[in-house]
Amino acid sequence: VRERTVTARIAVVGLGLMGGSLLRRLADLGAPVTGWSPDGGERDAARGVSGASTVDRLDDALRGADGIVLATPLLAMPDLLDPIRNSAPPGAWVTDVGSLQEPPLAWAASHGLGDRFLTSHPMAGGEASGFAASRVDLYDGARVWLSGGGAADAALEVRLERFWTGLGAHPTSIEAAAHDRLMARVSHLPQVVSTHLAGVLADEGIAAHTLGPGARDMTRLAGSDPRMWEDILTLGGATLPATLRALARRLEGEALRLEAGNAERFAELLGRTRAWREG
Amino acid sequence: VRERTVTARIAVVGLGLMGGSLLRRLADLGAPVTGWSPDGGERDAARGVSGASTVDRLDDALRGADGIVLATPLLAMPDLLDPIRNSAPPGAWVTDVGSLQEPPLAWAASHGLGDRFLTSHPMAGGEASGFAASRVDLYDGARVWLSGGGAADAALEVRLERFWTGLGAHPTSIEAAAHDRLMARVSHLPQVVSTHLAGVLADEGIAAHTLGPGARDMTRLAGSDPRMWEDILTLGGATLPATLRALARRLEGEALRLEAGNAERFAELLGRTRAWREG
Repeated sequence: VRERTVTARIAVVGLGLMGGSLLRRLADLGAPVTGWSPDGGERDAARGVSGASTVDRLDDALRGADGIVLATPLLAMPDLLDPIRNSAPPGAWVTDVGSLQEPPLAWAASHGLGDRFLTSHPMAGGEASGFAASRVDLYDGARVWLSGGGAADAALEVRLERFWTGLGAHPTSIEAAAHDRLMARVSHLPQVVSTHLAGVLADEGIAAHTLGPGARDMTRLAGSDPRMWEDILTLGGATLPATLRALARRLEGEALRLEAGNAERFAELLGRTRAWREG
Repeated sequence: VRERTVTARIAVVGLGLMGGSLLRRLADLGAPVTGWSPDGGERDAARGVSGASTVDRLDDALRGADGIVLATPLLAMPDLLDPIRNSAPPGAWVTDVGSLQEPPLAWAASHGLGDRFLTSHPMAGGEASGFAASRVDLYDGARVWLSGGGAADAALEVRLERFWTGLGAHPTSIEAAAHDRLMARVSHLPQVVSTHLAGVLADEGIAAHTLGPGARDMTRLAGSDPRMWEDILTLGGATLPATLRALARRLEGEALRLEAGNAERFAELLGRTRAWREG
């Protein structure tokens, strides 16, 4: 087991669920960490994290950082890149924890940060959002997809891998476009389905607190942060329609079969998906 | 707080997740409980539950019982009702823990058990099935929908309410047809959606172990017992097609909006479903 340790001075920009949890873990590891958020309430809340320093001005977080982690909604990132280029030490690496990888890489390149930017996507989170939902163990054991835009060198990748491993997460390299296509299926599709399922139940006048464990799990993502998802689907939504339609066609086929009294086909499918889940 | 206690002699018929968990809790409470399953392997496994007696012949479980709980798949129930009428004491109550309520009530009535049968549906369970998945706390705090067919009297309802309350569950009376309509929305719909979502992901060649927490939750029900669901949808599937089609239409509308670059409407919906979840 590799020891958890981070010695780099880290600036965490954005203190919601993802950034707040990062601040907590880094402070817990004794790493020198500084947090900043555009939201004054989140800054105040983050001041309760012992061992972390939370500052009122972005520049004060960036100055002296060895590494900078952007933990804001995707569309808030471009405006932060010029301040980073102007105020952070030239040798500092930059990453983000957004849910898509092609857009952050393109922004970093166009803002002159391509050679020191890698994009990270930790498969961790939850439907709760904001600093209040953050927790020290959010990244424990989480896979972190890591990709670069070509301008970054291997040494940078080693630094980022060491950073995530030091936090207790599992970095895995991927190509950004492949990552974003994969996420359309394993993340965006479940998010859209959960939300529309919740929409159907809400329209039927069913109270959420009456749901059993299965339906609660199926509508958990319907409690996610609208701003975060508006950004993800604005930037990455174009790859989703084909898969959404495939699912809609399957549901219509099931409706026809059930009307005909045929539940066998569903049971066969369930046998296959059960085997799929068990690997 | 009402004390958990069951003093009646209970026969548990079927020793999968539901029956096995009932056997464990009753034994844990010191209640005189006897279990039987048509599956010899499950009977052997249940013999490891200290304080419970597991027998090889159904008649031996029924004789001397004050109450009988059917915990088999729905379509296995009708064949058990004649043995119950012939072997159980005439004063013993009978219930089941199936997922639909109109079919068991109709079967009980047609087998001459209508005056001592109530149907129970505990909102507890999980995707794992079989005795190996059973656990002592499955029913703790669970809502149990309870309904009768008209021939049963109020005294029977009091006995069943006391039974479920004694187990730590929360019995709630409902009308069977209303229950089954509700379940089509809060249970069968999520089950079918989870399974077809898993079908899409499996067809795309995505390995289940690579999923993040959101997609894992969304495909958890896709690991459920095919036999149980074939029975539920064979008996209750006719009410589902309209709701399935409503969801399919919503997904197609979303596909059109995302193709047009409109993610705002989705964010608005997500704001509403988030508020719905929070009650």
